[in-house]
Amino acid sequence: MSQFKIAGIQMACDRSPAENISHAMRLVTNAASQGADVVCLPELFATPYFCQTEDPACFQLSESFHGSTVSSFLEIARELGITVIVPFFERRSAGIYHNSAAIVTPAPTSPDVYRKMHIPDDPGFYEKFYFTPGDLDFKAFTTPVGKIGVLICWDQWYPEAARITAMLGASVLFYPTAIGWDPDEKEDMGVAQHDAWRTVQRGHAVANGVYVAAINRVGFEPAPNSDGGIEFWGQSFICDPQGVILAEASADQEEIILADVDLDHLERLRQMWPFWRDRRIDAYGALQKRWLDESGNS
Amino acid sequence: MSQFKIAGIQMACDRSPAENISHAMRLVTNAASQGADVVCLPELFATPYFCQTEDPACFQLSESFHGSTVSSFLEIARELGITVIVPFFERRSAGIYHNSAAIVTPAPTSPDVYRKMHIPDDPGFYEKFYFTPGDLDFKAFTTPVGKIGVLICWDQWYPEAARITAMLGASVLFYPTAIGWDPDEKEDMGVAQHDAWRTVQRGHAVANGVYVAAINRVGFEPAPNSDGGIEFWGQSFICDPQGVILAEASADQEEIILADVDLDHLERLRQMWPFWRDRRIDAYGALQKRWLDESGNS
Repeated sequence: MSQFKIAGIQMACDRSPAENISHAMRLVTNAASQGADVVCLPELFATPYFCQTEDPACFQLSESFHGSTVSSFLEIARELGITVIVPFFERRSAGIYHNSAAIVTPAPTSPDVYRKMHIPDDPGFYEKFYFTPGDLDFKAFTTPVGKIGVLICWDQWYPEAARITAMLGASVLFYPTAIGWDPDEKEDMGVAQHDAWRTVQRGHAVANGVYVAAINRVGFEPAPNSDGGIEFWGQSFICDPQGVILAEASADQEEIILADVDLDHLERLRQMWPFWRDRRIDAYGALQKRWLDESGNS
Repeated sequence: MSQFKIAGIQMACDRSPAENISHAMRLVTNAASQGADVVCLPELFATPYFCQTEDPACFQLSESFHGSTVSSFLEIARELGITVIVPFFERRSAGIYHNSAAIVTPAPTSPDVYRKMHIPDDPGFYEKFYFTPGDLDFKAFTTPVGKIGVLICWDQWYPEAARITAMLGASVLFYPTAIGWDPDEKEDMGVAQHDAWRTVQRGHAVANGVYVAAINRVGFEPAPNSDGGIEFWGQSFICDPQGVILAEASADQEEIILADVDLDHLERLRQMWPFWRDRRIDAYGALQKRWLDESGNS
């Protein structure tokens, strides 16, 4: 299939898990009714963003790959013939939990899973407490519309993740996301932070000649036992392989965004600006190092 | 030195080599008088962009590392105490020519050289005929203001080049450039092409927490023996480690752009959004491959 439609569900996730899941099911069904072949939900959409604090009680929110979050979408995918990217808090065993996304397709072998490879940890985003870094490597997933890539939030800052996923044949990189402003920082840094986030991902689209879909939460979620919280900045977007924005949501509303993927357009762009031809793979070994300037300068 | 000033010379390069060099010397001296510690010239600034055709006669334009293009700036650098990035068409031996940039500093050991690693070839930019790909690897250069990186034009589309140069300790990535519109494509694709160029480089700034300075030619240069030519799109820019534009030139004028580099700002940004901490260097080996999806899909 050389053309297909993708959608992102920008939603607030401050309801109970059961309510978030049923709300998401309705929105996914709505997106499918508008012609979407692939629909992406935001990171950990079934729960509030519990990583605002480090609280062992939150591990109760985790569930297996066969839990209700993922299985709720199996029937929808089969019935509607669509692919759904279903982020979930994965319990793999006592003591091993991942920030994951199930790739749910109509195929009998579905679902498959991606486990977030790069785990953040900064004030309000204490993910290193909860999540073991992914050990399934970067992946591209076979769907009825061809191969797609799924990466999660913090992964979006790493050109290596986008590059390897594109090399695996993905035509679209989906980034389920939960990013927002600290209300104390928004006035001074809000514009630059959001623009950096948008720019680095549009850059991945350009460098790799792929479509990118970044699907974020929206709305304010207070931090437990504090005056703070996160204002999720919405602004989910889909861009083409030149970084041209095809669809973009508001900063404060739940929205479904849709865009057409055209694999002929993708291939023409890779022919006109043939970046893939010229990678210096003989000179990239250093990328497996942590750092090269042992003086500590810069 | 935790703060210093950098400059880019956006210039037309359609004069004779002697005239281009003397013009550039005046502009570099002017930039230094405005406080610049590091000044960057456009790619191959000493000559018209001869790669619009494949003509063996153009090899006459090449010169050694000790030729007049580079040596013209040695005295300026020493006298004014500045660093100058001097792109030149390097003749290394009969049959081996590079698209290079000399890094000219006041130090007795100066200059050093970067040889363009990624060589383009598309209509109007027939560089693979002229230039052997660089074999000196990616480099960061020690200057009086610390380490800087130099990459050249087509390199700017490769996240790997930016990443490795940043890992070598560069606080600024300079990209001498010669990029423009094919007049036949400008109306349909001009905006998207320019924005892709700007975006991917701002993305390198964000992903690596470095300043980026892309310094382009400006003006129309006709193609020999044809109706065509290239309209170099100017719009040289300098951005900070969040991709925030600090200075940007017009699309049609010669200009000197200047901006301040603040290494404390750079370090604060790397602390607030600690991307460097979390690279999955255990999972990046695939970057040394050409492609991973042997089905040929996507």
